[in-house]
Amino acid sequence: MRADARANREDLLQAARDLTGEKGLDVSLRAIAQRAGVGVATLYRHFPTCRDLLTELLQGLLADLRAAAERFHSGEEDLSARWRDFAVHVAAVNLTAVAVTRQSMKERDLPHRELMEAAEGEILELMESVASVVRAARIVRADVTGERFLLGLMTVMRPLLPEVEQVLPDQRAWLLDAYLRGLAAG
Amino acid sequence: MRADARANREDLLQAARDLTGEKGLDVSLRAIAQRAGVGVATLYRHFPTCRDLLTELLQGLLADLRAAAERFHSGEEDLSARWRDFAVHVAAVNLTAVAVTRQSMKERDLPHRELMEAAEGEILELMESVASVVRAARIVRADVTGERFLLGLMTVMRPLLPEVEQVLPDQRAWLLDAYLRGLAAG
Repeated sequence: MRADARANREDLLQAARDLTGEKGLDVSLRAIAQRAGVGVATLYRHFPTCRDLLTELLQGLLADLRAAAERFHSGEEDLSARWRDFAVHVAAVNLTAVAVTRQSMKERDLPHRELMEAAEGEILELMESVASVVRAARIVRADVTGERFLLGLMTVMRPLLPEVEQVLPDQRAWLLDAYLRGLAAG
Repeated sequence: MRADARANREDLLQAARDLTGEKGLDVSLRAIAQRAGVGVATLYRHFPTCRDLLTELLQGLLADLRAAAERFHSGEEDLSARWRDFAVHVAAVNLTAVAVTRQSMKERDLPHRELMEAAEGEILELMESVASVVRAARIVRADVTGERFLLGLMTVMRPLLPEVEQVLPDQRAWLLDAYLRGLAAG
């Protein structure tokens, strides 16, 4: 691929990540192309179908979470700091919008079902691999499983109403902190 | 009003409370009548318009929150226990569904704008009247304002996905507990 084609492809994926993070999977390809500053024809050249694009996004998301878990497990920092970094990173990946809007999507636009199920299984395993370490170290309470942690995090990070961001711009960060304090072992 | 008419009216309001708590304001009057076990004609006799019904619901919700704040302020129990009871009660009122779906409603179906603004103001005052007491007593952190508390609670209580209830039926209660622990003064 030529350098400018590669750049376009990266811009498109970044735009797709941003838009699906904000609005969920149900964003138009046109909106993604616009955000990336390229024409729709360019988008279709890189990603002929919506499924192609979302499959690529899913792979990127998985790679991102794998890297975060890897950093947690092999990092040199204090375990509490690594746990916090991990949680903040997972929160930023914003699985919420994806999960919430998935149901309204047509099956043919989504990645293959087996791929999605495998991804879900792997994500839960990654979460549990981290949660089990911080549970054993009594950094978090005994009832904090990877699954509970992730579902709670996704709930906490879901934007309530657009107005909230205007009235209290730091409300999500505040709530994330409250959530993490609430998980801490007493 | 005759006793059976009063009973019908109460059943209708309860059905409306339940359904709007589950699905938000955008429920059909037909669904409410069905849930209450009465005909649509009976519903229209009691509440000629959607606005009439939602205005009555709003008044009930306000009365409910006023009573909860009143119990908090005048209760005899230990302050921490009263704070917890108050939070659990506000969580059960389920303002989330109402707030989230309000935007998609037609203005003419909603209570008058002044009424809604007055209600919002009063709700925030009630929250702050309670939050200021638990802040002063150092039961919660100094940054827990009534507004932050309420917005956080509404976020935490929002159902993420119907599947979650099936996989982890106690996830919402678990998350509410985590949230309240996270607000506690260290």
